[in-house]
Amino acid sequence: MLQVNLERIKSDILTLAEIGRNKEDRGIYRMAFTDADIEAKRWLSDRIVAADLEHAVDGAVNVSGVLEGSTDQPRVMVGSHIDTVPCAGALDGTLGVVVGLECLRRLKEEGRQLKRTLELIAFSDEEGRFGGMFGSQSLCGHINPERLATMKDLDGVLLQDELRRHDYDPMAALDAARDPESIASYLELHIEQGPVLDRVHKSLGIVDEITGLFSWSVWLRGEANHAGTTPMEMRNDAFMGLADFAHEVPRILEENGSQRSRATIGKAQILPGAANTVPGLVEFSLDVRDTSEVILDDLSSAFRKALSAIARRRNLMFEFEQKSYLAPVGCSEVVVHELMEQANKLGIDFLAMPSGAAHDAQIMGRMVPVGMVFVPSKNGQSHSPAEWTAWADIGAGANVMLNTLIGLADDL
Amino acid sequence: MLQVNLERIKSDILTLAEIGRNKEDRGIYRMAFTDADIEAKRWLSDRIVAADLEHAVDGAVNVSGVLEGSTDQPRVMVGSHIDTVPCAGALDGTLGVVVGLECLRRLKEEGRQLKRTLELIAFSDEEGRFGGMFGSQSLCGHINPERLATMKDLDGVLLQDELRRHDYDPMAALDAARDPESIASYLELHIEQGPVLDRVHKSLGIVDEITGLFSWSVWLRGEANHAGTTPMEMRNDAFMGLADFAHEVPRILEENGSQRSRATIGKAQILPGAANTVPGLVEFSLDVRDTSEVILDDLSSAFRKALSAIARRRNLMFEFEQKSYLAPVGCSEVVVHELMEQANKLGIDFLAMPSGAAHDAQIMGRMVPVGMVFVPSKNGQSHSPAEWTAWADIGAGANVMLNTLIGLADDL
Repeated sequence: MLQVNLERIKSDILTLAEIGRNKEDRGIYRMAFTDADIEAKRWLSDRIVAADLEHAVDGAVNVSGVLEGSTDQPRVMVGSHIDTVPCAGALDGTLGVVVGLECLRRLKEEGRQLKRTLELIAFSDEEGRFGGMFGSQSLCGHINPERLATMKDLDGVLLQDELRRHDYDPMAALDAARDPESIASYLELHIEQGPVLDRVHKSLGIVDEITGLFSWSVWLRGEANHAGTTPMEMRNDAFMGLADFAHEVPRILEENGSQRSRATIGKAQILPGAANTVPGLVEFSLDVRDTSEVILDDLSSAFRKALSAIARRRNLMFEFEQKSYLAPVGCSEVVVHELMEQANKLGIDFLAMPSGAAHDAQIMGRMVPVGMVFVPSKNGQSHSPAEWTAWADIGAGANVMLNTLIGLADDL
Repeated sequence: MLQVNLERIKSDILTLAEIGRNKEDRGIYRMAFTDADIEAKRWLSDRIVAADLEHAVDGAVNVSGVLEGSTDQPRVMVGSHIDTVPCAGALDGTLGVVVGLECLRRLKEEGRQLKRTLELIAFSDEEGRFGGMFGSQSLCGHINPERLATMKDLDGVLLQDELRRHDYDPMAALDAARDPESIASYLELHIEQGPVLDRVHKSLGIVDEITGLFSWSVWLRGEANHAGTTPMEMRNDAFMGLADFAHEVPRILEENGSQRSRATIGKAQILPGAANTVPGLVEFSLDVRDTSEVILDDLSSAFRKALSAIARRRNLMFEFEQKSYLAPVGCSEVVVHELMEQANKLGIDFLAMPSGAAHDAQIMGRMVPVGMVFVPSKNGQSHSPAEWTAWADIGAGANVMLNTLIGLADDL
């Protein structure tokens, strides 16, 4: 079976890691449409041209490298992103792009022409300087002129001004939309960003479902009182309401959730927030994920009931607001089957698992068949300079990707 | 039985309420050693002189009015404070001083000379601009030159500079210490600052014990992780450790506490504090109060055990630091008995109750016999312009104080 050149992958990863690197904290700062990000896009374009692949940049500044197939059947795409969060590690997104590049480069240098066209794509602003998934949303036609005109980063810099600064036409993102019929499938290799593969010592995760999520802001309002003069039974302690709720979370997951359910209270503000004052108000976040829309609905209803009951019991006012909702996306059975078959042929032990984080594949998955491959994150770490994956695991993942691309592109 | 002149009490309260009043929020801003506080001290001095009482100001700028007794037996003191928190109501502290003034004034105008000397005292900085209980601590000899030189407010203003600004000698506070043998007892009337008397519809609380307290800062350290990619069973969620602990609080109070125990988690910081991140660190406060030192010890040990067990179970690191400890103080049985007897004679229904908040009587109680009387706080509110007590309740409390002072000063 054809194998990738792991040394080239290493070299590309380490080269890209120097673009946007901060010498003090060793973190990479390659946020979307910064000078570093544009430099990385240019570096990638040069590699695509050097590999004798067809080079293209669309209106959303997604960078592509194309290996023409022998037919005009819908193409197979492979990719990820090369923008980063602030103080990032070397692999998030970047690895998927570099592996995709290596797959097309290997096929090109072998002189293999497959039936379907293969396209490597590096999507713009996956990490969210201007909201996230800008490139894949543009390709899927989810961007409109109003959003284009108003999207800005945390410092108030408008996306359209950043695009103009680099001589791109901001309105061109509207032209990046593709015909779904032109795409057979989209594949993405990504670091897991979680601890599972590292703990079970497997080199590869094959994603079968991408989790959906809902995220709430919840308010419990009681009455602030003096901690010394207010007897326990005369309190309307908002924090104790939150504690009661947190205590119910495991039961609610057991009763209504699946193995793949997650519920997290990640943020909480307690007011007035003095040691000698009974809390009068808490505001907290609830982030709930599962791969099934039905289970998400059941969890939403169970969490609401629990909060109402606690508010009644403790004489609190309960309000909540849904901040976001993302429907789960199933991976394509055809792609998952192909990935598993190639992993078996290569003798690589894998775990079928969900994807809990958001990726471009989640956007693409609503339009075309998708597949995702995870490689292990050391100690589950990501979004930090501590992010790492063993080269052997990267090699295993890349070889599965290469042979799956061949399988999917030659399936006619 | 002798009765106070309630109209004079009303007039004094309403006059003092205008000193330091902010016209916008209607709150009183008479923080210790501000111009408003000094103006109030001067007003009080004038009233003392006008009532033909002996006037004195000690080195801690405690203002006294004295009604000489016929013997040189230890004196009976009565008082509270006239400094306020920012945006205060009209009664906290002030009521106790005004009632004490009225008691001595009534006796003076009746021409009553009691066996013991009676002294009204208005203590400096009870509310804590420079740390709290400055006047009563000075009188009890707890102040030393180093503290005097370093005490400052939240804006960094040194106490000694504020004292000099008003032409007081900062070091003189060291001379304010009294011989405990010179004081037979100290009485304080205060608003309850809690909801109990208001809820049970009684005009009077007679304090039998002043609660002690310990206050901790607690840290639970886990690991921050991605809320989507980290399965529930692989988390070291610091916030869930706090929730577990809060859930144990009622059990711990039931098992180890008394009717008078209080435990409050008033402050909590969750880090990193993002909706999609499992909390890696929580820091929170624990404020625990009871009137028994033994129970406080038992509670301390039970809370420590619970935190250790939760930390082990959830794989968290647990640390805590005791931020403050105040031993409980029992009120004098003689004084409490006299208060109850006078209340019965006056036909005033009272509740024997603990004091949950800190007062000058708590400092004085470690040195001399003390007694405290509470009058109801409407809706339990204090430290705000909403603080109020019905005039009839104030009259009831003042008459009990007047006759108790007579009883205690004529007991020889």
